[in-house]
Amino acid sequence: MNCELVDILIKTAIQSADPYLAVKRVFDYKNRAFFIEGRTFKSWDRVHVLAIGKAACGMAKAALETIPREVLGEVLIVTKYGYAENCPNQEELKILEAGHPIPDENSLLAGRLGLKLAKKVGKNDILLALISGGGSALFVYPIKGISLEDLIRTNELLMKSGANIYEINTVRKHISRVKGGRLAKAVKGTVIGLMVSDVVGDDPSFIASGLTVPDPTTYRDAYEVLVKRGIWEKLPESVRKVIEGGMRGEIDETPKELKNAHNFIIAGNSKACEAVAKKAQKLSFNSTVMTTTLEGEAREIALAVGSIVEEVAKHNRPLKKPAVLVFGGEWTVTVGDAGGLGGPNQEFALSIARKIAGLNAVVVAFDTDGTDGPTDAAGGIVDGKTLERLEKAGIDVDEALRNHDSYRALKRVGALLKTGPTGTNVNSMVIAVVGESGVSESAGTRQLPELR
Amino acid sequence: MNCELVDILIKTAIQSADPYLAVKRVFDYKNRAFFIEGRTFKSWDRVHVLAIGKAACGMAKAALETIPREVLGEVLIVTKYGYAENCPNQEELKILEAGHPIPDENSLLAGRLGLKLAKKVGKNDILLALISGGGSALFVYPIKGISLEDLIRTNELLMKSGANIYEINTVRKHISRVKGGRLAKAVKGTVIGLMVSDVVGDDPSFIASGLTVPDPTTYRDAYEVLVKRGIWEKLPESVRKVIEGGMRGEIDETPKELKNAHNFIIAGNSKACEAVAKKAQKLSFNSTVMTTTLEGEAREIALAVGSIVEEVAKHNRPLKKPAVLVFGGEWTVTVGDAGGLGGPNQEFALSIARKIAGLNAVVVAFDTDGTDGPTDAAGGIVDGKTLERLEKAGIDVDEALRNHDSYRALKRVGALLKTGPTGTNVNSMVIAVVGESGVSESAGTRQLPELR
Repeated sequence: MNCELVDILIKTAIQSADPYLAVKRVFDYKNRAFFIEGRTFKSWDRVHVLAIGKAACGMAKAALETIPREVLGEVLIVTKYGYAENCPNQEELKILEAGHPIPDENSLLAGRLGLKLAKKVGKNDILLALISGGGSALFVYPIKGISLEDLIRTNELLMKSGANIYEINTVRKHISRVKGGRLAKAVKGTVIGLMVSDVVGDDPSFIASGLTVPDPTTYRDAYEVLVKRGIWEKLPESVRKVIEGGMRGEIDETPKELKNAHNFIIAGNSKACEAVAKKAQKLSFNSTVMTTTLEGEAREIALAVGSIVEEVAKHNRPLKKPAVLVFGGEWTVTVGDAGGLGGPNQEFALSIARKIAGLNAVVVAFDTDGTDGPTDAAGGIVDGKTLERLEKAGIDVDEALRNHDSYRALKRVGALLKTGPTGTNVNSMVIAVVGESGVSESAGTRQLPELR
Repeated sequence: MNCELVDILIKTAIQSADPYLAVKRVFDYKNRAFFIEGRTFKSWDRVHVLAIGKAACGMAKAALETIPREVLGEVLIVTKYGYAENCPNQEELKILEAGHPIPDENSLLAGRLGLKLAKKVGKNDILLALISGGGSALFVYPIKGISLEDLIRTNELLMKSGANIYEINTVRKHISRVKGGRLAKAVKGTVIGLMVSDVVGDDPSFIASGLTVPDPTTYRDAYEVLVKRGIWEKLPESVRKVIEGGMRGEIDETPKELKNAHNFIIAGNSKACEAVAKKAQKLSFNSTVMTTTLEGEAREIALAVGSIVEEVAKHNRPLKKPAVLVFGGEWTVTVGDAGGLGGPNQEFALSIARKIAGLNAVVVAFDTDGTDGPTDAAGGIVDGKTLERLEKAGIDVDEALRNHDSYRALKRVGALLKTGPTGTNVNSMVIAVVGESGVSESAGTRQLPELR
């Protein structure tokens, strides 16, 4: 088994997800026209830039390298505290740092300034919206009457109610002046949305609560979510008033259509998975993306993924060897009382080591942001001999899994993957490489070389 | 979505796994020759039949329908209490019912009579061994000095020690006069083993502890398992003595090679999965066996399987629609304090209903023996609208899963699968049918028509 191969595939994933590189890759300018994924935008006067999210600086940097100075209008960058240091270093840029995951006064200021900028965009202008994860909190502007405190309280209630992300977004969009496509609706000119997705499934209306994306949901939907989840009565009065007003038609609905807005997901889990599968194919492996919405308890779903790896190794199905299988998504660890050290990807790796024991296979599970749980590892990398090594090192794998103590177990046999912070986040990924036959020789903790 | 299709695929699985039909399918006689999966057995005098396991009667019935009266030698059938009623009704047959899962005096008698029959097989005779699940307990004959009680105690210790099935079998084979290929070694003539596998992965040496299969493990391996699992000191003295004697070479090792034995897995999870995939292909679906070794906590691995179904539905990968994906194996439910009613397959179905909501997909999860957990259902069958139906019926799916109360939830929306006892057991199976687009109309509790 080729060790370098796994490193190459990991790097492919991270580079595909990199916000700066993603904008560089898809956003092109030539002779007063912008080119994005086969679309051409021409006949405009000026381009304004609004970058929002944890990756705002990297995306803005790439955009400003592409947009010629003479056509550039206003630029507003909104990112998380501490993230502005990666921003382009130009005096005329407005850069705001704001609160995340809980919005603060600066988030509110960002929302106000952002909407002001949107309204200023001329009929013949473009607003380039560069949107990445974190935008929901970093950029807020509640509907009149709702205070920042009311908004925070509403978010808290939603989080605790068991509402899913779809339900939470339905409510959020209907109490905001910018979410659910309202930001784009305020623009007289053209909106180009370039998005780095940090949500599983890459639904554009979920990224930063869909600032530039039409919203199919209604005030009545929002009301029904709040009733169903049992928090309608607990809401701040201001929020109830807005939703009731919306249902009576006194407040405009979120836009159901936005003819002026063109949105592109330029990076995300799905794209990163595809990039890895494509790269593997180029390297003469049979490869496929198996899923981009993997979820569940890491220890258990690792057994399911491992059973497919075993099927490839033993029966050449669903793919013929040599094969690369790619699984994207976001998995969890339910810790309970046990207080070990680890993360979902490390636990996934430790668990799957049991299932691939004796096979010529290498499996790496990692968080694309480079940080898996509260550790300095991005995840784990295991092969057909890892279980034997663990047992020889006196580690009881089942016990380590029960105690959620994957970090120490993997470290002991050199099976941690360390990438350092990658500057991106498109959730987690599993790459399984299944070789021709026999047991692989591989693994050992790897420190990836610098990525750029 | 075609409801009948799912029924056809379920029937295909159960018929592929049926012990009677399986023997009928592969075991043929013409002009003093037997034909089995491309192999021919001729130039023999008589055929003796030894059928052992829960499916012994069905297998024996088919064999005796094929073997002409004039060449038939002795017949011994060993099955579980209550299972003999399905046996062929011939006076000259010896039929024994014995203890399962704990062996009893009749199991010991069966072992003695079986070994006696094996020794009686002439050099120019065939012993047709028809082997199915349950044989490990139904057919025992410990090495001299080890009592039935000692054997039972050893099994208990192994079970509680956390030893895996491979380790348990290593010990079992080394304290038996019939297991680990020793039965076949006692035969001077030819042994033909036809096996119905009830073990995940279909390793023939695991089925009824490999009566007719060479055993790669040694007395030292058995000793190391017992030490590693911390039960060596607790073993009955007689067992320790045998293993020590074996290590000193005073007792023959299990045979590492058996030139006279020819084993065929004629039914099992893998074959059943393949039959379903093949049938789907004939019906113009893209189809594949995804795995035959799926394991883990039902609720969680359902999310993993569901994420692949979602990928097919939304992105046409790893298979293009319309597609049928088949997953075989054995999954579990860890019940804890919650005391609902259900089984692993029902819990799998209820869990995956969340993941396939809104998709044009039908997923059925079922135990091939027709009994999932302590219920009258074989499993559950859900589609893209099941979650909505559950919610409309006022069922909190997450709560039902937490309480392991899948039976009542599925029953409420008509999503139980009932087949009745199928007379076979090749573990569990998940069949996922993903249609072209939109949401499926299907489901409703189904009572399958009679299978034969």
